[in-house]
Amino acid sequence: MTTGVRRRMGVEERRQQLIGVALELFSRRSPDEVSIDEIASAAGISRPLVYHYFPGKLSLYEAALQRASEDLASRFVEPHEGPLGERLLRVMRRFFDFVDDHGPGFAALMRGGPAVPADAVRSMGAASTATALIDGVRQAAYVQILAHMKVENPPARLELVIRSWISLVESTALIWLDGRRIPRGELEVQLVHDFAALAAVSAAYDEEMSALLRGSLQGEPGDGPFGDLVVRLIALASPPEA
Amino acid sequence: MTTGVRRRMGVEERRQQLIGVALELFSRRSPDEVSIDEIASAAGISRPLVYHYFPGKLSLYEAALQRASEDLASRFVEPHEGPLGERLLRVMRRFFDFVDDHGPGFAALMRGGPAVPADAVRSMGAASTATALIDGVRQAAYVQILAHMKVENPPARLELVIRSWISLVESTALIWLDGRRIPRGELEVQLVHDFAALAAVSAAYDEEMSALLRGSLQGEPGDGPFGDLVVRLIALASPPEA
Repeated sequence: MTTGVRRRMGVEERRQQLIGVALELFSRRSPDEVSIDEIASAAGISRPLVYHYFPGKLSLYEAALQRASEDLASRFVEPHEGPLGERLLRVMRRFFDFVDDHGPGFAALMRGGPAVPADAVRSMGAASTATALIDGVRQAAYVQILAHMKVENPPARLELVIRSWISLVESTALIWLDGRRIPRGELEVQLVHDFAALAAVSAAYDEEMSALLRGSLQGEPGDGPFGDLVVRLIALASPPEA
Repeated sequence: MTTGVRRRMGVEERRQQLIGVALELFSRRSPDEVSIDEIASAAGISRPLVYHYFPGKLSLYEAALQRASEDLASRFVEPHEGPLGERLLRVMRRFFDFVDDHGPGFAALMRGGPAVPADAVRSMGAASTATALIDGVRQAAYVQILAHMKVENPPARLELVIRSWISLVESTALIWLDGRRIPRGELEVQLVHDFAALAAVSAAYDEEMSALLRGSLQGEPGDGPFGDLVVRLIALASPPEA
């Protein structure tokens, strides 16, 4: 017993507590390094009692993944108010909070799920559960962004810009986690700009995208994240001062 | 016997032939849909003879992956001559040739490797072999791009731009494969522009990146892929004509 708290919990309450404890441990180290004993000890219960609620580490891991992906998807929800660039920046801040909190677990998950060699057959199941959960979060992010852009039937080029930007966000976070050599605040702003830049590249050669982008950027203030970027890009494109 | 050709091949020659036949089949359909019987039939030999050269489908799949990743990595090699934008465009054309030729196999591989449920323990091995090969290709692409930019000790921001762009290339190809709704030639140009745009966003807020980018773009002609983009972006940033 490590918590010192001894009271009887209901089944669902206990399950939720164990998921929380497991998620905390799976987040801080690669999930294959976390043992059931450790989870039991952190939850202040015995190892057999853990097995009473979850048949094994894998089902606990899946439940923790489920909770983490619901949490992550919820961070893309943002009120439909104010300039788009600022909304997206708030989303990026919450996303990096998540990555910061769940670093090693996030990295292991995004690199194909943790290896659980002792139980490989079932870990293949966990890998596909993980893939399905990750795809669910990506889809939730995609739907949110479309809604903010007020687009109901996205043309293929807009879908490509949004989905490929979501993958850029993931890879940027993974690269950041590997050494944290760039301040995360800088990357949050940069990813908002990257979205505008990828959309602008697509719009540069396509009339429909150009009209969509002009529409979406109409409400952007000149000193917001998007307006600021345009000014800086134009400065960069000008000949350097001698 | 389906080929009608009957001559004795040497062991290594036969292995290489089988790898070629297998790669062709694994490329056109998801690898878990391809049977050893089919590979034997396409190679014009008996099923037991396939097993004489490879202990099972998995080792043949790994050998095919190995060859495909060497092929893919070689497509990032480009002479150090002429404007950077045009070099990168030639690389993107060869990359999309590869994706076009190996569509379903590429998609299955990039989405976490094929499922081989009947042999799950060893397929976990194949999954990590695949991850190692993919990482090798990514690293080869990264090293090539640095060499073209003539940068020996890349700052963290440049490394991030290059590596995250490589992941953007992968995700763009995967999205393209899902329905091919955008002409690939447009995406090849777009990805070259995306590279410039991601670098420009990073340079917009960082002096070191700005100097690097100016240096790399010095030799770009005004009507090359990079010059053209800048002109179009500035046009897009100007107020729309009424």
